[in-house]
Amino acid sequence: MDPKILKELVIPGGGKIVFLILDGLGGIQMEEKGGTELQVARTPNLDRLAERSSCGLLDPVGPGITPGSGPAHFALFGYDPFEYNIGRGILEATGIDFPLTERDVVARMNFATVDQAGRVVDRRAGRIATEINQRICRKLSRELQVEEGVKVMVEPVKEHRAILVLRGEGLRGEIEDTDPEREGVLPLDPKAAVPEAERTASLVGKIVAQTGKILSAEPKANMVLLRGFAKHTKYPSMKERYGLHSLAIATYPMYRGISRLVGMTVLSEVHNLEEEFQALTDHFSDYDFFYLHVKQTDSRGEDGNFDAKVAVIEEVDQYLPRVLALKPDVLVVTGDHSTPAKMAGHSWHPLPLILHSKYCLIDAVKEFDEVSCLGGALGRMRSVDLMPLALANARRLTKFGA
Amino acid sequence: MDPKILKELVIPGGGKIVFLILDGLGGIQMEEKGGTELQVARTPNLDRLAERSSCGLLDPVGPGITPGSGPAHFALFGYDPFEYNIGRGILEATGIDFPLTERDVVARMNFATVDQAGRVVDRRAGRIATEINQRICRKLSRELQVEEGVKVMVEPVKEHRAILVLRGEGLRGEIEDTDPEREGVLPLDPKAAVPEAERTASLVGKIVAQTGKILSAEPKANMVLLRGFAKHTKYPSMKERYGLHSLAIATYPMYRGISRLVGMTVLSEVHNLEEEFQALTDHFSDYDFFYLHVKQTDSRGEDGNFDAKVAVIEEVDQYLPRVLALKPDVLVVTGDHSTPAKMAGHSWHPLPLILHSKYCLIDAVKEFDEVSCLGGALGRMRSVDLMPLALANARRLTKFGA
Repeated sequence: MDPKILKELVIPGGGKIVFLILDGLGGIQMEEKGGTELQVARTPNLDRLAERSSCGLLDPVGPGITPGSGPAHFALFGYDPFEYNIGRGILEATGIDFPLTERDVVARMNFATVDQAGRVVDRRAGRIATEINQRICRKLSRELQVEEGVKVMVEPVKEHRAILVLRGEGLRGEIEDTDPEREGVLPLDPKAAVPEAERTASLVGKIVAQTGKILSAEPKANMVLLRGFAKHTKYPSMKERYGLHSLAIATYPMYRGISRLVGMTVLSEVHNLEEEFQALTDHFSDYDFFYLHVKQTDSRGEDGNFDAKVAVIEEVDQYLPRVLALKPDVLVVTGDHSTPAKMAGHSWHPLPLILHSKYCLIDAVKEFDEVSCLGGALGRMRSVDLMPLALANARRLTKFGA
Repeated sequence: MDPKILKELVIPGGGKIVFLILDGLGGIQMEEKGGTELQVARTPNLDRLAERSSCGLLDPVGPGITPGSGPAHFALFGYDPFEYNIGRGILEATGIDFPLTERDVVARMNFATVDQAGRVVDRRAGRIATEINQRICRKLSRELQVEEGVKVMVEPVKEHRAILVLRGEGLRGEIEDTDPEREGVLPLDPKAAVPEAERTASLVGKIVAQTGKILSAEPKANMVLLRGFAKHTKYPSMKERYGLHSLAIATYPMYRGISRLVGMTVLSEVHNLEEEFQALTDHFSDYDFFYLHVKQTDSRGEDGNFDAKVAVIEEVDQYLPRVLALKPDVLVVTGDHSTPAKMAGHSWHPLPLILHSKYCLIDAVKEFDEVSCLGGALGRMRSVDLMPLALANARRLTKFGA
């Protein structure tokens, strides 16, 4: 759906929408377990909800495409995941709650070890401790200086990972990676991919040269490799697009960061499921749209721990009555992508989906899992189409055409 | 899926993929037979495979669109059938295994009969015998001469059908048909559709004039009608796009030709099902991707012979264990398009599809036919999206976005 056309259909008022997103929810069968995680999990509340709702399956990006969390979440919020495929640097920045401005160019920075000839011998600097990373970042932020009016910031993430931020007027993000992606060779020069980025590329060149000197005494982290340069641009907000005052409830920084990029208010003081569901209750009267993110389904899937993922799903099921008690006008339960325990990683498989509202067609699906939802009223649809459907069910869209 | 984005996701290594393509597989019910060809056929092996796989339906091109074999196959190989809708001349050339170069302009050539005033009296020259065609083509190839550096070749196909190839630098394919598509009128002039094609158009004009003289003594085939001019361009290969070393096993020249256009290695010494499946076994260790084409399902469908088409399906079913014994990482069984015996021709109906891999979601489908597959995990999808899904199941794609 063209966002411009959709925007014209948005009308004032309408109901409250809750997106309960279980990260990495979808799975595939593990023979010895007797089904998928959702098939095996005891989920009486989700099953009862499925029975009185429209069900279906979501394709996060496209058939066969395994999405990262970035595109998968943008799609859920109705933003084209190809158009809003944000740079690695910006995703890392959102992941540490770094407040970006529209004057910023950001890159992912890895500390690395180079030999005396400057050749990369370890692209991850032996995965230095985060404390060393923090110390070095402070030193770099203090000492790097490239040009009047351009501020250089280096922010630690974890182990050997950091971000580089250049803040100033007229900077451009079209800079090629300096990470050669293999060892035994020199880092690459930061080349401008378009002529307009020449100035920024030369600033990055200075930063790399100065960094080499500043870090020359470091035993491991004596160089940096940069990739995923991007200029931060402001995205249209959920308020601008859909007229929604939105609240994000998430325990992990990256999901808070993505939410902030689309203009949601972000709660930062929640640490576990109990606090997340309590926060939903506490703030329910203050917003129109609520994104509640459950991280552990994905984490346990990534661990390849089928039983633990089942346990998280069962725990969420127990919280469901608290959501229903708030009587949201639209309740969506789904994931951002699949993380089958069998694969111990993200996958391309479509996600089961429940959409409940006063106006949904009730189909024959009586259990919430990947196979049952195949027979649901929503069929198989793209994640990016979910938001218009939720808005419609909340009576927030008017008729298209006369 | 944008092929550029897909290409960036391809990673080295991964499993082997087999596409078992039964041409014209899909059917519709014939009342007196009690079902579709697939519903009536006894296919214990395919049914057992369906039971442990993801099933679905493929739309070759789009709802209601009956594809020719060209677009239907390009779509299966992941090439947009609208973008790669190759000219009639080039399809005929691939059909006779004619080795095209990027300096070639090709047209489909029909021998025709004209009267003394030059008016077309028979657009097919009474469907002359193929032997006459071959003799005339040799004569034309020997005698036609238009310009230094431009080679003119005339290759017989069958009966009144041949191809014309102009080979040289700077030739263009934008030439209008000379076939008036009706009788009683003069052939049309070969007009340039764009100014850059003026030179090529004038060469074609000379060819037509010379041909009229060379063939003046022929009782029936005394003129040629040309259509479907196109310049041959090299297509991106399956290796370039997907990193796949691919083998095509097909008994019919046209399917070998299409495979060659997308850069597959093509076996030309196979003549029947037994040899095809044996070739798959013999070459299984040497390639990543295997396209095995079964022609007879389509031929019997085109004949309107329901029972014979059923028999071909049952015969292929008996070969299936030999494919499974090779333990391909991904096995796809489907067709390129439907050819219902009831219609005695290609049709627009979607195709039943099995996708089997270690990572497929197992759905509730237990029989391989057009109706059962409706309930499958893959839903209804476009043929062009099949290749990314197969690559994903072979673990040949990395994550999209961070």
